[in-house]
Amino acid sequence: MQVLRVNTETGLIHYEAVPEHWQRLGGRALVARFLLDEVPPTCEPLGPNNKLIWAPGLLVGHMLSSLDRISVGGKSPLTGGVKEANAGGTTGLKMIWLGLHSLIVEGGPAADGRWQILRVGLDGASLEDAGDLAGLGLKETAMQLLNRYGPKIGISAIGPAGERLYRTAGITHIDKDRNLTRISARGGLGAVMGCKRLKAIVFDNPKPHRPPLADKTLFRDASARYLQGLREHPQTSEIYTLYGTAAMVNFCNSQGGMPTRNFSAGSFEDAEAIGGEAIKELNTERGGEIAHACMPGCIIRCSNLYAGPDGETLVTPLEYETIGLMGSNLGLNDPDVIAKMNDIANDMGMDTIDTGAALGVAAEAGLMAFGDGSRALELMEEVRQDTPLGRIIGNGAGLAGKILGVIRVPVVKNQALSAYDPRAIKGTGVTFATSPQGADHTCGLTIRAQVDHTDPAGQAKLSQGVQYSMAGYDSLGACIFSGSGLGADEAIVSDLINGRYGWGVGPDYLQHLGRETILMEREFNRRAGFTNADDRLPEWMTGEAIAPTHTVFDVPDADLDAMFRPES
Amino acid sequence: MQVLRVNTETGLIHYEAVPEHWQRLGGRALVARFLLDEVPPTCEPLGPNNKLIWAPGLLVGHMLSSLDRISVGGKSPLTGGVKEANAGGTTGLKMIWLGLHSLIVEGGPAADGRWQILRVGLDGASLEDAGDLAGLGLKETAMQLLNRYGPKIGISAIGPAGERLYRTAGITHIDKDRNLTRISARGGLGAVMGCKRLKAIVFDNPKPHRPPLADKTLFRDASARYLQGLREHPQTSEIYTLYGTAAMVNFCNSQGGMPTRNFSAGSFEDAEAIGGEAIKELNTERGGEIAHACMPGCIIRCSNLYAGPDGETLVTPLEYETIGLMGSNLGLNDPDVIAKMNDIANDMGMDTIDTGAALGVAAEAGLMAFGDGSRALELMEEVRQDTPLGRIIGNGAGLAGKILGVIRVPVVKNQALSAYDPRAIKGTGVTFATSPQGADHTCGLTIRAQVDHTDPAGQAKLSQGVQYSMAGYDSLGACIFSGSGLGADEAIVSDLINGRYGWGVGPDYLQHLGRETILMEREFNRRAGFTNADDRLPEWMTGEAIAPTHTVFDVPDADLDAMFRPES
Repeated sequence: MQVLRVNTETGLIHYEAVPEHWQRLGGRALVARFLLDEVPPTCEPLGPNNKLIWAPGLLVGHMLSSLDRISVGGKSPLTGGVKEANAGGTTGLKMIWLGLHSLIVEGGPAADGRWQILRVGLDGASLEDAGDLAGLGLKETAMQLLNRYGPKIGISAIGPAGERLYRTAGITHIDKDRNLTRISARGGLGAVMGCKRLKAIVFDNPKPHRPPLADKTLFRDASARYLQGLREHPQTSEIYTLYGTAAMVNFCNSQGGMPTRNFSAGSFEDAEAIGGEAIKELNTERGGEIAHACMPGCIIRCSNLYAGPDGETLVTPLEYETIGLMGSNLGLNDPDVIAKMNDIANDMGMDTIDTGAALGVAAEAGLMAFGDGSRALELMEEVRQDTPLGRIIGNGAGLAGKILGVIRVPVVKNQALSAYDPRAIKGTGVTFATSPQGADHTCGLTIRAQVDHTDPAGQAKLSQGVQYSMAGYDSLGACIFSGSGLGADEAIVSDLINGRYGWGVGPDYLQHLGRETILMEREFNRRAGFTNADDRLPEWMTGEAIAPTHTVFDVPDADLDAMFRPES
Repeated sequence: MQVLRVNTETGLIHYEAVPEHWQRLGGRALVARFLLDEVPPTCEPLGPNNKLIWAPGLLVGHMLSSLDRISVGGKSPLTGGVKEANAGGTTGLKMIWLGLHSLIVEGGPAADGRWQILRVGLDGASLEDAGDLAGLGLKETAMQLLNRYGPKIGISAIGPAGERLYRTAGITHIDKDRNLTRISARGGLGAVMGCKRLKAIVFDNPKPHRPPLADKTLFRDASARYLQGLREHPQTSEIYTLYGTAAMVNFCNSQGGMPTRNFSAGSFEDAEAIGGEAIKELNTERGGEIAHACMPGCIIRCSNLYAGPDGETLVTPLEYETIGLMGSNLGLNDPDVIAKMNDIANDMGMDTIDTGAALGVAAEAGLMAFGDGSRALELMEEVRQDTPLGRIIGNGAGLAGKILGVIRVPVVKNQALSAYDPRAIKGTGVTFATSPQGADHTCGLTIRAQVDHTDPAGQAKLSQGVQYSMAGYDSLGACIFSGSGLGADEAIVSDLINGRYGWGVGPDYLQHLGRETILMEREFNRRAGFTNADDRLPEWMTGEAIAPTHTVFDVPDADLDAMFRPES
């Protein structure tokens, strides 16, 4: 395995040996180490001193269900801190099959300002002129790249959002069925790629090449237990398969945690219309695909191809967070409207969470009426057209709030909250407040824990454990839904790692890896200027009670500040 | 003397005794103490927990030339840290004549959201309905308030910029000739007043009432030496009187420090056309007023009433910083265009520095060609009309850069640099980087020091001394130009203070007061989450050399970080 290092400014391309202290790191853990090692913490995130890394998780390569995710990382232009954004699709697999431990992109744009494509094949890597790809949406980008390089390539690319340096811009990966829609969404890494004028990376058709195993028996046995765990748990064998992540709508709504009308309420009267069952029914009726896998080998298949009234795919995937932020958060109850907005965001290559939250802020500012779907689509058109208002929305909820003079802005570290109101689901609120990544449910969702989610006591401890686990998962390349498999017995993770690498790790490996990762991330943030003052929910959430729970966020600051002290 | 405390939300009004530890504080020093005592450092600056204070300087009240300035303070919605913004005009005098040590405005808006006016007279204070004043520009606001309350009132008011919560919004004070144009400009305090829905404070016609003197002879003798110092120094007796602050144009341009085309160069080929002599000549020819005082008794009279081609006043005052940021920084060489832009900004009640810097960023983004005056005026119309683009500009250069995807943004702590390029005038660069206020020339301008301004050595020490002095001046209520008088002999400041108050302070009083003030400000910022990482110029200024000096900003970070350590 090697590290591929590419300088977009000088054109220099190197294959390097993996540094010794990187060899046991992958995914999110590697991102954190890389940032500490190579990126000046106070650098301008959209300047030439920031770098990007593509880091497959440690278990990537075997097409074992839900374990082939890719992490992309850099200094975030949205938060100003550490950023790791992982996604499904085939990028992780293709990189491992190309023998790449990781891929680093550094430098500014080429001197003549041209847009470039990085092609990586078994025969080496080269920077090629992007020609007329610049400015194209991701659908058209995918089509042209597939034409140019053949149908079996992997792709990581940015859409117009990344080219325009929107701070909601992600980096989008192609899935196993050539949909260029699996997005490393959060924190604006697409803008970092855009400032280097790199439109796309093409992983030129490596053949499947499973990495060697240190102990085949151990690995295969653990794999079997893992898959059995996934199959036996109703969440991963049934609920997510049938309803996708939209299954969360009714559950979260019933807990009073569904963001509604810019987080002014925690339940939405029309939640059912945009919930998992309604969407499944509609999609089935129209001939859409309900249980779609984004990665080869995935047996959960939580993704969907959502069909419009004409039976054609309107968007893929239509997911819970998008439904929350672009649906209930805007008072919208029509899945087709949400799907259309989602499709525009996907084609632009931008985070639906921060975009939806920005639209909620725009509604609060009077720029649309909550519930007005046509106006919401008009606003998405403003984004597509790159008007000043479109740029305000495209730069996320935090900046939109500042520009539009709105105080009820749902962000932490300038990154929008995902679709769980922290006043009703307080452990997740702790995660939003304290994660070095900024507000993000994938850093530690607590809604399924059997606790009183409105009781502030014990939420910091709960969040801490889940944050360590998730940072571990993100370092393995494991999907957030793999838990019912990886957790089926306490040795599965260590057996998989030991089976693959022979490192002899113990059963505390996952939490340990997660903890080390978060401590590295916090160290980068500290050097970048973050303090405890950044580990806070918005002030208004501590004072403004939310219906129907009538609770505020009241986990004490002292609990938040104690979480990641070295001794904790 | 009393503290007047007004809650805009509850309508409660109290006159309180001055707390003992506030009694020897005024102006900027009092602002810093007040923030530490009363404002939660991490509060939302535009929320109900932020407060504003009006704090006349310690020497205010005697109409002694250039010593009657008013400080307004609060947590800045632009920087997120401490903010003191002082101005001339008559507010300080009227407050002292009303027996007010200080005035605190706290709480959110009234429950029904109505706009209010605070009237303060010798008979007490009351909150009154602002009626149809909301939405009006400051010219019309002044006219209506003068009609309603009589021609001799003092006024502090916000324009539409403050009402709309623009982060460039200031709080504007009326001058001795009823021009409502003396602005506490920087840091967005007008938006803090706006979020409380307080349109104006009217100081209802107190008669001049010079505060008592502890030692009349000492005070009068020191006053005489002070005035003599002002009269003997060519800067204050001649240059600023004849040419106003615009005298700085040719000087700064000759040093290579004149911001040109969004700080991409340090000298402007048409500097002469917008310099002090050209403006004086044009203004004389048209019948404008050259030597105008903003405060009664001022003998420097650096201000002007700039006449347009028709002989009518186009704007007052037309000042150096505005010429720098709205002129050369935009490549504009027509004083009338700059004056028109300035007039719009004045009427909106916004900071010309941050607005001009935002326009420079907009030009960099391709929204206007440098040098295109009609387009610049169009952009100011966008601001006046409150369009999305107008709001982007009206929220200052830092946010504009983020929204428009521009990296060459001249801000520190999100506040725009004044008109001195830090790469050519490095001591002032140190001030910009390290002042707790964010980039601001009034916190410590070094351009007149007899040093090589491009040599990084010694600049931190130079800036430190000037920063202490200026923080002291700002606490006395002393204009930045009073130095030639206050510094005429080393005992003038202490004699004035001892003559007035009988405190028995020594000749180190000014530097000591300034240092204590800055340490308090830094403590507030620390609690608000600031670190050394915030005490930096933009990264690009350390890498991108500027013509004609061909220098970058290279004062070592270690010099910056050592400046305000407790032992330094």
